[in-house]
Amino acid sequence: MVLAVIPFRPKNPKTRLSCVLDPEEREKFAVMMLSDVVKTTSGAGCRTIIISTEEFSIEGAETVVMDLGLNEALNEFLSEINEPVLIIMSDIPLVTIENIESIISTKSDCAIVPGRGGGTNSIFIRDPSRFSVDFYGTSFLDHMNIAEKAGLSVEVIDTFRMSTDIDEKEDLVEILLHGNGESRAYMESLGISLSVKKGRVGIERDSHEEAL
Amino acid sequence: MVLAVIPFRPKNPKTRLSCVLDPEEREKFAVMMLSDVVKTTSGAGCRTIIISTEEFSIEGAETVVMDLGLNEALNEFLSEINEPVLIIMSDIPLVTIENIESIISTKSDCAIVPGRGGGTNSIFIRDPSRFSVDFYGTSFLDHMNIAEKAGLSVEVIDTFRMSTDIDEKEDLVEILLHGNGESRAYMESLGISLSVKKGRVGIERDSHEEAL
Repeated sequence: MVLAVIPFRPKNPKTRLSCVLDPEEREKFAVMMLSDVVKTTSGAGCRTIIISTEEFSIEGAETVVMDLGLNEALNEFLSEINEPVLIIMSDIPLVTIENIESIISTKSDCAIVPGRGGGTNSIFIRDPSRFSVDFYGTSFLDHMNIAEKAGLSVEVIDTFRMSTDIDEKEDLVEILLHGNGESRAYMESLGISLSVKKGRVGIERDSHEEAL
Repeated sequence: MVLAVIPFRPKNPKTRLSCVLDPEEREKFAVMMLSDVVKTTSGAGCRTIIISTEEFSIEGAETVVMDLGLNEALNEFLSEINEPVLIIMSDIPLVTIENIESIISTKSDCAIVPGRGGGTNSIFIRDPSRFSVDFYGTSFLDHMNIAEKAGLSVEVIDTFRMSTDIDEKEDLVEILLHGNGESRAYMESLGISLSVKKGRVGIERDSHEEAL
């Protein structure tokens, strides 16, 4: 059974969605996305731990509270375990069980899922004592370098669904097009829907005066 | 041997890259991306035809000139053939031979590769007499509907590399991070490189006064 670790910040998440969602909605939406991810890791048979910046609970996972930055928290956590670990971001609700199975069945020492724009949306590390994470910026390249310096083989996993982290208004389009979990249902409950203008696909929200 | 068809517009392509590339560079860059795609379809054993809006030639493919809109040209072409066909866009230079093999080996009647933002970046059609294309807008949903109405089974292919069509400045980041073909070499020859500012990854160009 592989351990899945999901870092999560319950308070004031997803600030770049402020143009569409109010603070309370952003918090709820972040939990819905996390819930979609937890269902997938659990569904793939992983034991799932949330590393949260504060007290938090969600069905299907344990929570460890660590009031540290993302890298500091993850690296401290990695230093304390002795088993293969899958780190996965909480904002990729399109992830499927098949995606998770594909990563954790890699024959390499590590498997990395790049996010759009140079990020890392998930990383599987067979031996955490030989690896440390470095998120932010071009973390995809950084993680490739860290693995290479440690002499670890890496498989890069090619998946659109997992490369799609939800940060900005435009990203919500992907949930409405390809999602089928709680985060999609929550968006729809808020009256958010697809809108096509001049051939470009965006979103609009019923309750607002004008299209967002 | 599967027939691969790539629509291409040699003149004034990729206007949304005008902020980074001058008109001549855009034309060259579009050809480099096309070349990366043609090498992949050929490498996967496809016979490759370019449907071009005007006279054009490139190694590894035949060209058919059709001075029509994208949908009109493709549907006219589809109506004239009686074999499985892979339609693939010319602006997805990250595509790999494994990607192509995965699509054309589908067991379904069709296979669709969604692009980011609701588009369709490639579609495999086993029996072109039973399908017509409808690009632009939410073409991914439109193609799913067309297949459903025709009673055709569809496999949706989950690939980041093929979902990444290069339209805007931000998309160039992906070529520098994940590309290894002619389009990447051309960008580098123009002095375009990655730039990280406030944790966000973008591109900059040597010859310009300021970062783009």
